[in-house]
Amino acid sequence: MDVKQLAEQVIAGNRRALARAITLVESVRDDHRAQAIELMEEVGKSGRQALRLGLSGTPGVGKSTFIESFGMMLIRQGLKVAVLAVDPSSSRSGGSILGDKTRMELLSREKNAFIRPSPSQSELGGVARRTREAVALCEAAGYDLILIETVGVGQSETVVSEMSDLFLLLLAPAGGDELQGVKRGIMEMADLILVNKADGDLKPAAQRTCADYAGALRLIRKRPQDPKDFPKAMTVSAIEEKGLLEAWGEMNTLADWRRENGFFDKRRSEQAEYWFAQDIRHGLLSQLEKEPLKSMIAGLARKVSKGEITPGHAAADVLRALKDA
Amino acid sequence: MDVKQLAEQVIAGNRRALARAITLVESVRDDHRAQAIELMEEVGKSGRQALRLGLSGTPGVGKSTFIESFGMMLIRQGLKVAVLAVDPSSSRSGGSILGDKTRMELLSREKNAFIRPSPSQSELGGVARRTREAVALCEAAGYDLILIETVGVGQSETVVSEMSDLFLLLLAPAGGDELQGVKRGIMEMADLILVNKADGDLKPAAQRTCADYAGALRLIRKRPQDPKDFPKAMTVSAIEEKGLLEAWGEMNTLADWRRENGFFDKRRSEQAEYWFAQDIRHGLLSQLEKEPLKSMIAGLARKVSKGEITPGHAAADVLRALKDA
Repeated sequence: MDVKQLAEQVIAGNRRALARAITLVESVRDDHRAQAIELMEEVGKSGRQALRLGLSGTPGVGKSTFIESFGMMLIRQGLKVAVLAVDPSSSRSGGSILGDKTRMELLSREKNAFIRPSPSQSELGGVARRTREAVALCEAAGYDLILIETVGVGQSETVVSEMSDLFLLLLAPAGGDELQGVKRGIMEMADLILVNKADGDLKPAAQRTCADYAGALRLIRKRPQDPKDFPKAMTVSAIEEKGLLEAWGEMNTLADWRRENGFFDKRRSEQAEYWFAQDIRHGLLSQLEKEPLKSMIAGLARKVSKGEITPGHAAADVLRALKDA
Repeated sequence: MDVKQLAEQVIAGNRRALARAITLVESVRDDHRAQAIELMEEVGKSGRQALRLGLSGTPGVGKSTFIESFGMMLIRQGLKVAVLAVDPSSSRSGGSILGDKTRMELLSREKNAFIRPSPSQSELGGVARRTREAVALCEAAGYDLILIETVGVGQSETVVSEMSDLFLLLLAPAGGDELQGVKRGIMEMADLILVNKADGDLKPAAQRTCADYAGALRLIRKRPQDPKDFPKAMTVSAIEEKGLLEAWGEMNTLADWRRENGFFDKRRSEQAEYWFAQDIRHGLLSQLEKEPLKSMIAGLARKVSKGEITPGHAAADVLRALKDA
């Protein structure tokens, strides 16, 4: 494959080239990885900058409906929208692609929308790196807004936050007046909390939940990257398409302020450093999955388990073999 | 140093040799690590098996008082007791040793007690490996019971659980009838929950808290390594030395059952495999802390941060340098 040519086609906005490029960065083959590195260098020259929007929400909060409504609104404004996902549990054969198409039926038919399911890998580190590169590819391809969604499972929010300019937390109205067990760490990551389903019977509950979270946000330590009144909580109704324009307005207010005050570029720089460290880590540990080391480790593990060799001795043997390989 | 001789002295019960041996396994020097590996092989030949008891409890639950009372009770029964700690935040210069001596004043004066503070390292992985080896050294030195304590911070409970035969959770009486935000993962690790401070005014609250946790434990999936009625919750008073003998009885019941049914050895085998995997991981990642790689990474991180090179490209450069080193 001619990587330079592929990069040019991606930058020219060719959808099939973009899909092929993402498939390349998703590959675990060593030769593909070398090509992917070259590809990322090439597309980096486009100089384009999209707004990268992380979106977290547990199943049931109406995430797909939100993305569909919000995405369609942006498309009608003439914007190009890409939707990516970080879901370490997804499996392509399990119908993730089909799922994404039916989940966002209108959006998936738009020529200015690009929807790509999560890479099918059980290991979050692998999913993360590939999605991060897919984000940069979509950006180079001229998408104005890149939505990166995740279900709130384990570390996946951190991973999505580390590839987003803004991080949105989507919630459903709560029954009582209690916070929905959202972890403090997630609250501290959020730039905007959107309480969905502010329609029909649930509207009062949505407003109450929104007030609760607005209160909780005020208790969180002030962050330098926030202007006055941010982070903030709002209600939306994805089904009735209400509050979406207001939410989009707030996102732009925040993004513009950060751009003007240097925090936008600063965050991207820090994220690049974060991914550099993660890539090294991931590359180092992935050596252990390859033969002949994998078999050597399995054999030593049996001996360790039987007490024939200490864990420390066996580990030293593996590390020596790695060095000599 | 003659490692074989040191191992013999440790096995002979020489306290100074034991302290020196622990200092050796705590060292981060490469030559010391090689000696430590040999030492661990040698002491493994003692064939002794202690009861390794993990103990977790946040500050304020009376952990030191419990260890002091419980330890003294065992000493009076003629047992030898070692107390180790996993505390990634501890700093030796900060007075951790002094702290441990004053925290357990009576126990620290007993010739059949051996108290060693947490190794002073900020990185949990390093603390964990060293403490795990210190546990095996105390076992070879003839201690009957090894208490490994930790404050409930982040991953430290998992680490302690992975070096313990039994895992105890020490709690204080709660104000209301609510569980004290103990994470589900910790609950699932616990073999015995001890609600401390069942004395004076707090006695009714302690009993209520104990009942709450007993109820919560019943909701947890049955584990194959448990006989009937385990895991279980009990009240104790460390200050009034009440319930300690009963708790010790339950620990022995559980440990004996597991020994007879093969779960005791099975757990140790699995733990050895766990530490083998951790040691490899730790050894691999520690390469990044050494020169000249450390400086190379710092230099590349600056370039990545400025956008002069992609994270993936920079990481590939580091991995190549590691291979060629």
